[in-house]
Amino acid sequence: MTEIEANTIEFLTRIRQKAPLIHNITNFVVMNSSANILLAIGASPVMAHCQAEVEEMTSMAGALVLNIGTIQEDWLDSMILAAKTANNVGIPVILDPVGAGATRLRTEAIKEIMANSSISVLRGNCSEILSLGSADVKTKGVDSSLSLSDRTVDAARQMAIDSNCIIAISGEEDCITDGTKVFRVSNGQPVMTKVTGIGCGLSAVTAAFCAVADNNLTLATAAAFGYYGLCGDLAIKTSDKPGSFEVAFIDRLYSTGSEEIK
Amino acid sequence: MTEIEANTIEFLTRIRQKAPLIHNITNFVVMNSSANILLAIGASPVMAHCQAEVEEMTSMAGALVLNIGTIQEDWLDSMILAAKTANNVGIPVILDPVGAGATRLRTEAIKEIMANSSISVLRGNCSEILSLGSADVKTKGVDSSLSLSDRTVDAARQMAIDSNCIIAISGEEDCITDGTKVFRVSNGQPVMTKVTGIGCGLSAVTAAFCAVADNNLTLATAAAFGYYGLCGDLAIKTSDKPGSFEVAFIDRLYSTGSEEIK
Amino acid sequence: MTEIEANTIEFLTRIRQKAPLIHNITNFVVMNSSANILLAIGASPVMAHCQAEVEEMTSMAGALVLNIGTIQEDWLDSMILAAKTANNVGIPVILDPVGAGATRLRTEAIKEIMANSSISVLRGNCSEILSLGSADVKTKGVDSSLSLSDRTVDAARQMAIDSNCIIAISGEEDCITDGTKVFRVSNGQPVMTKVTGIGCGLSAVTAAFCAVADNNLTLATAAAFGYYGLCGDLAIKTSDKPGSFEVAFIDRLYSTGSEEIK
Repeated sequence: MTEIEANTIEFLTRIRQKAPLIHNITNFVVMNSSANILLAIGASPVMAHCQAEVEEMTSMAGALVLNIGTIQEDWLDSMILAAKTANNVGIPVILDPVGAGATRLRTEAIKEIMANSSISVLRGNCSEILSLGSADVKTKGVDSSLSLSDRTVDAARQMAIDSNCIIAISGEEDCITDGTKVFRVSNGQPVMTKVTGIGCGLSAVTAAFCAVADNNLTLATAAAFGYYGLCGDLAIKTSDKPGSFEVAFIDRLYSTGSEEIK
Repeated sequence: MTEIEANTIEFLTRIRQKAPLIHNITNFVVMNSSANILLAIGASPVMAHCQAEVEEMTSMAGALVLNIGTIQEDWLDSMILAAKTANNVGIPVILDPVGAGATRLRTEAIKEIMANSSISVLRGNCSEILSLGSADVKTKGVDSSLSLSDRTVDAARQMAIDSNCIIAISGEEDCITDGTKVFRVSNGQPVMTKVTGIGCGLSAVTAAFCAVADNNLTLATAAAFGYYGLCGDLAIKTSDKPGSFEVAFIDRLYSTGSEEIK
Repeated sequence: MTEIEANTIEFLTRIRQKAPLIHNITNFVVMNSSANILLAIGASPVMAHCQAEVEEMTSMAGALVLNIGTIQEDWLDSMILAAKTANNVGIPVILDPVGAGATRLRTEAIKEIMANSSISVLRGNCSEILSLGSADVKTKGVDSSLSLSDRTVDAARQMAIDSNCIIAISGEEDCITDGTKVFRVSNGQPVMTKVTGIGCGLSAVTAAFCAVADNNLTLATAAAFGYYGLCGDLAIKTSDKPGSFEVAFIDRLYSTGSEEIK
C-alpha cells in the first residue's frame, strides 16, 4: 500500500465517522447532485446562500465550497462574506471557477473572491484555471478548450506559487500542485464528462477530504481526486452510459472502502 | 386491514384519480426530486415563487408546501403571501422548517410564517422541530442532532396544542400529533437519510394526502408517513445503496398500491 | 429510409461531432435534467441567467433556450436581452412557455418576450400554446388541460402564421407547424408525463437540432421530436416506472443512433 492509499483510507474513515458539515454556495444546476455526492461519501452537506445567514453557517462547517456556475451579483457578495468567515474560523475554502474564461463576469468574480479572501484549493478544468492566469485562453461555456500538458502543469505550478493556493486541474489526466509538490492522477472515465455536476461534485468531495485533513490539504486534494476517479473506474463496470453510470457512481462513492482503494 | 391502512388506500386512490395540484415554494436543492416524487404518487406539482403570481397559483391548488431549505428574504415574503392565500381559499399548508435551529434566519423565518398565517402541518426532523419550541436545541446544518424519545413526543404534543397545528417529526421512528392523537410510525430505512430531498419529498407527499383528505389532516399526515416509509421498505429490496435506492424508491411511489399497503 | 429519418441522422451526427453550445435560461426544477439531456445527445449545455453575462454567453452559443417555469422579473429581463442578442448574431431561439395560461405573470412574460424579439420555435403542451392565442384556455399549473385535435392543429397553424414562428405542441400526439408544413408525430410514452423536466428537455433537444440545421428549423424541430419520442419508445423496454425510466431514457439519448432511427 502506497502512502497516498493509506492517507485516502484514513481521510475517508474520518469523513464517515465525523460526517463533517460542508457549506456549499454553489450553482442551481448541481445543488442536488453535489448534496447526493457529499451524502454518499459520508459528509453532511448544507446549501445556504443568503447574506443574512452565511456567516453563521460557515462558522459551523468543516469546509466551504464556492462555485460560480450560475453566479449573480448578490450571490458573489455572499461568497466573499462566507470566504472571509472561513478564513477567520480557519476552515478550508474550495473554489470552483465554473466557466471562468467564458465571460468577463465569471473571470472577474473569481478574481474578486481571491482578492478578498484566502482560497485553499482552486479546482476546475484546464481552460477555466489557465484563463485566470493568462488573457489568451477562452473557455467554451463550461467545457474545457484545453487538455493537460507539461506546459500547463508548469503554468499551474507557477499559479499555485503566485496565488498561494493549491491548483487542482481535472481532466483526462488530473494535476494537483501547491507549487512544490505535483500529483498527477489518471483515474476516471470519459463518460464522467457526459454527466452534469461530476466536476462540481469533485470540488465538494475535495472539501470533505480537506475538512478532515489537519491542514495536509495538498495530500487531501490528491486523495480526493484519486478516490473520485477510482469510484468512476468501478462504476463503469456497471454501465458506460451516462444515466445509469451516474446512479452507479453514487453507489460506488457510498460503498467503496479500503479494500478497493488498495 | 386496519383503519389507517384503509384510509391510506382511500387517500392514494383519490390522489391518482384527481391529480391534485400541489403548489411548492421550496428550496433549489430538492425542486427536481420533489416534483418527481409528487408525479410518482399521482399528484400534479407546480413550483412558483414570484410574488406576482403566488396568489393566483395557490388559489388553483389543492395544497401548499413551504420549505425554507435555501431561504432568502424575497422568497420569505412570497411564502407568507401564499400562506395567507391558502388560508383564505381554505387549502392545507405544509411547512418544512429545513435547518431551523441552525441559523437565526431560518428559525426566525419559520416563526414569521407561523405568526402571519395558519399552518396545517409542520414537518421536519427532531432538532428542527424542537428548536422552534425551546432555545437550547442546535441543528447541525440540515441534519438532526436529536432522535425521538418519550420526552420529545411530549414536547411535540405540547407544541401542537400551543401552535394549533399538526406536528410531524420524521426520523428513525416518526411521530405525528395534533396534541390529542399521537401516531408513531416505524417504517422506512436508514439509507433514506443518505439521499438528499427525501425528507422534503415527505412534506410534499403529506401535502398531496392532505389535499384529498376532507380535513382529516392528522390521519392524512400519518397515512402519508406510513405510505412513504413502506415504499422505502419495498425499495430497499432492490438496492441498499443511495443512487439506485433513490431510483427504486421513485418506482415504488409510483407502483405501490392497495396490495402492498395491506 | 424516409427523408425525415435521413435528416434526423444527419442532424444527430452533426451534434455529436460539433457539440454545439446551448445557452439555457431555464427554470430551477429542470436545470440538472436539461443539462444531462443535452450532454447525452452530444451537445454542450451552459446555464447563465445574470444580465451581466447573457449577451456574451449567447454570442458564443449555437442556440438559445428560454423557459419560464420559475420566472421572476429580473430573469425575464435577462431572457429578453439574450433573445435580442440571439437575433443579432443569428442563432435560433427556442421558447418554452411553461405554465402559460395558468397565471397572468407567465402569459404576459411570453407575450413580452415575443413582442421584443423574434422567436424561432415556441414549444409547449397544448393548453400552454393555445392559451397564448385565445383567452378561454386555462392551464392547470404546468399540465395541459387539452389534447391535440384537428381544431387545435388548425389553431396552431394560424398561430404560426400570425407570430411568424414554428409552433411545436407536444402531447400524446405532437404537432409541429410553421403555418405551411405540418408534421404530426406519435412517438413517445405516457410515463414521460410522470418525469419532471421531460417536456423542458425536449425544448433543449430542439435547440440542439436547430443549432446544426442550417436554418431548416421546421425539419429540425420535427426531427428532434421524432428522435426524442423514439428514445422514449426504446427506454420503455427497460422500465415503465418513472425512476428507472428516466435513467434508461438518458442512456438511450446517448446511445441511439442511425440503426435505431431507421
